[in-house]
Amino acid sequence: MNTVPVWSVDARTGVRSVQVTVEAEAGDVDRAVRAAHAALPALADRSARSALLRAAAEQLEARGPDLIAAADRETALGTARLTGELARTAYQLRAFAEVVDEGAFLDVVVDHADPQAAPAPRPDLRRWKVPLGVVAVFAASNFPFAFSVPGGDTASALAAGCPVVAKAHPDHPETSELTAGALRAAAESVGLPADVLVLVHGRQAGVDLVRHPLVSAAGFTGSIAGGRALYDLAAARPVPIPFHGELGSLNPVVVTERAAAERAEEIGAGLGGSFTLGMGQFCTKPGLVLVPEGASGDRLEKALVSATAGAAAGALLDGRMRDNFLTGFAERAALPGVSVPVQAGAQPGPGQEQAVRPGCVSVPAALLAGEEHRALLEECFGPVTVLARYQDLDQVAAVLAGLGGNLTATLHAEPGEPEAAGLLERLAGLAGRVLFGGWPTGVAVAPAMHHGGPYPATTSTSTSVGGTAVERWLRPVVYQSVPRELLPPELRDGDAAGVPRRVDGVLQLR
Amino acid sequence: MNTVPVWSVDARTGVRSVQVTVEAEAGDVDRAVRAAHAALPALADRSARSALLRAAAEQLEARGPDLIAAADRETALGTARLTGELARTAYQLRAFAEVVDEGAFLDVVVDHADPQAAPAPRPDLRRWKVPLGVVAVFAASNFPFAFSVPGGDTASALAAGCPVVAKAHPDHPETSELTAGALRAAAESVGLPADVLVLVHGRQAGVDLVRHPLVSAAGFTGSIAGGRALYDLAAARPVPIPFHGELGSLNPVVVTERAAAERAEEIGAGLGGSFTLGMGQFCTKPGLVLVPEGASGDRLEKALVSATAGAAAGALLDGRMRDNFLTGFAERAALPGVSVPVQAGAQPGPGQEQAVRPGCVSVPAALLAGEEHRALLEECFGPVTVLARYQDLDQVAAVLAGLGGNLTATLHAEPGEPEAAGLLERLAGLAGRVLFGGWPTGVAVAPAMHHGGPYPATTSTSTSVGGTAVERWLRPVVYQSVPRELLPPELRDGDAAGVPRRVDGVLQLR
Repeated sequence: MNTVPVWSVDARTGVRSVQVTVEAEAGDVDRAVRAAHAALPALADRSARSALLRAAAEQLEARGPDLIAAADRETALGTARLTGELARTAYQLRAFAEVVDEGAFLDVVVDHADPQAAPAPRPDLRRWKVPLGVVAVFAASNFPFAFSVPGGDTASALAAGCPVVAKAHPDHPETSELTAGALRAAAESVGLPADVLVLVHGRQAGVDLVRHPLVSAAGFTGSIAGGRALYDLAAARPVPIPFHGELGSLNPVVVTERAAAERAEEIGAGLGGSFTLGMGQFCTKPGLVLVPEGASGDRLEKALVSATAGAAAGALLDGRMRDNFLTGFAERAALPGVSVPVQAGAQPGPGQEQAVRPGCVSVPAALLAGEEHRALLEECFGPVTVLARYQDLDQVAAVLAGLGGNLTATLHAEPGEPEAAGLLERLAGLAGRVLFGGWPTGVAVAPAMHHGGPYPATTSTSTSVGGTAVERWLRPVVYQSVPRELLPPELRDGDAAGVPRRVDGVLQLR
Repeated sequence: MNTVPVWSVDARTGVRSVQVTVEAEAGDVDRAVRAAHAALPALADRSARSALLRAAAEQLEARGPDLIAAADRETALGTARLTGELARTAYQLRAFAEVVDEGAFLDVVVDHADPQAAPAPRPDLRRWKVPLGVVAVFAASNFPFAFSVPGGDTASALAAGCPVVAKAHPDHPETSELTAGALRAAAESVGLPADVLVLVHGRQAGVDLVRHPLVSAAGFTGSIAGGRALYDLAAARPVPIPFHGELGSLNPVVVTERAAAERAEEIGAGLGGSFTLGMGQFCTKPGLVLVPEGASGDRLEKALVSATAGAAAGALLDGRMRDNFLTGFAERAALPGVSVPVQAGAQPGPGQEQAVRPGCVSVPAALLAGEEHRALLEECFGPVTVLARYQDLDQVAAVLAGLGGNLTATLHAEPGEPEAAGLLERLAGLAGRVLFGGWPTGVAVAPAMHHGGPYPATTSTSTSVGGTAVERWLRPVVYQSVPRELLPPELRDGDAAGVPRRVDGVLQLR
């Protein structure tokens, strides 16, 4: 008997609206995984996969108004942001359709038999990649489309040929149901089983998913605590599975003395816009900004204060996050030596009972070396950033040396600054994406994108955004001396399949 | 005080020859890792890396006679095999030098800035891969060169730009010292620090290595028990690291009725040669062979018996393996319904006190469904294979469904057999390499090779042989809006670096 209700909650008011469904119990999860697993053979057809991805984009767009309304109510992210996020999600699905059609991701390598080869005769070898199997996708709270049921993990898994069992995020169960419905309808519209995507709800369902013998890999976006617990479960299985988790990131920014001198106001205002964007709920929010002591840094701080004080109040994704944000801010603000240029706090209004206003703190960089100030080097979800005022680049280096892995790291320097190369190299050692100028919020969906970084940013060396995200759900298989008629078309000689290949050691485009 | 001696033992006689060194204690391991870590910047230069790999091949060849003599005494594998293995190892080092020079492994992807891009303006993005850091390499017992200190894990890690701390296998400490010396001399000969490769001995040293904060990844070839224990340690670290382990494989073979009818004698003799090769100590040894009941299968079994009975006796790699082999054979032979066409056993002779002779067992395939016969579906290291005689393809399917992951799976069928496609697909689901005819022993060093498979064959989806093995030791970094002069040459516009790239979504060879 399934008895635990799953409610849709209005994020702005904290009030329950409708009961969407009930949480999945062990038997439900087992049925979901088996249903998805049964859809695996149907996804072997690459053209069906790209048709599915394109149809999914169309379905999401056709249902856009309903999806955005539900997501706005459940997340309070606003229709403008959600309209953009849905467009991004549809674009991403189509981008993966192109990845599927091109076929480079199959990594085809052909070595013809060579009885004269050194150091030993070589048989005919033809390698490509095959889908791992059912993928468990854990939806994120902060992107109800782009990193949730129809998001990058799902799109890349389907592109790889893997059916998906998605675990809905409890912050947006109705949006999850609606988007899952869109994807299932898309599957049926192209002649695939709807069960290429199956949705489950409930925390225990997520645990059951990671433990299920027919689940072959998992993708996760969420907190360090939750992600690490699931990673540990995945690693402890009798048959361990890859767990691609994106867990948390401080996203350090370094502003050089010269950059502050030249562009204090621009940088301060830009930072204010970036850390409050989406109410500071981006995984790429700049959470620690190293700014020089002195007049230029003071100007920058002043511009930041002005931008922060002028930023709108708004609700966070749920009440727990709101509480954690308020507690986290207060904890940081209370540390010795920390000043509070803008105090964050609750700011309820009519229909906005859950709203908070952004804030920032400032601290001498030298204090960050101590264990007492450790919290300032840890991510605080929500609209807060930490300015660390440094006296010299040795202090910068010391702070950076104390950081864990990050999704991004940003350098604001002026053209030709001699220190820039060394700083950039140091930042590249800490992060998967290194920016020169600009702000890390905003992750372009592009072939070159890498959205990942050293632990705890991610639990693997892979990305969850960009074309290479498909690599996570594949494993190589090589066929040795297999007759042509028994080979997949992509592995046969001739150009019937037309995918890029490496043949006898030489790359070929077609 | 380091006090645990490390002895070199003659594998044929079981007699200690010389004390090579002492086991590394925690402080020694720490010093080894720090020394290797200090060599990381020097390996950033790609041309230095390929020079190192070529110099290493030359050093191994120049020292060949001494290396082979030591390895032969320590492993009993014979000078012919070891001469070939050393040639293979040198070839592999040079093959990775070519991988480094070509640069495709850097996975360079460039997207130029596009203010008009859908669904949002796109910044300039340039992605490539950077070395993970220090790699711990665990040497294998059964390949003192090709999968040990100078083997594929080391060669691919150095190719990636990662310094290596190798943990010697206790079966061949002297060979390990000699080969490490060759690699360190090679490094110095090309102007690199010798500490690009550091050697440690001792079981606890291996544990300390996997736990060391400055170790960023590990490569392992060995037993399921040992590999899983280290995998678990790697996953349980505060900062988990990739652990690429090759643990064990049964390497199933299916012989169709028609293949048996047409080629019973050839297949039986070939199998006898394959499972006794190197005294059955290959990770790709065919350990379970599904052969039809009836006259054709009987002919095949008879040919196998003849080949097995005629195979030479010889020593295994060490006394523990010898004991495990003899115990494992006896345990399998004693199971109900199992017949023993050729009895394995100890066969000591003068200067060959440790020698054993190969054997094989035969069992009705139907019995393999039961828990009682589970041992027949598990790898037994050494010269033994299991014939499973089947009545129909349903029995074949049932046996295959009960298997874990494998490095290889082999089909012997005749051209045009209608069942071949289905069997091949089933085998591809079980293994990383699928052979049509032939035998899985012998792993070609070639770009298309994949030496890996579903767990427990390997703990990741990667390979330890072939050019793609380098991928294990890299992580992507993308540079966003970074000025040309601050970019690595490989990421700049123009063809100065000449590596294959994907530019604005389009693959380019140069």
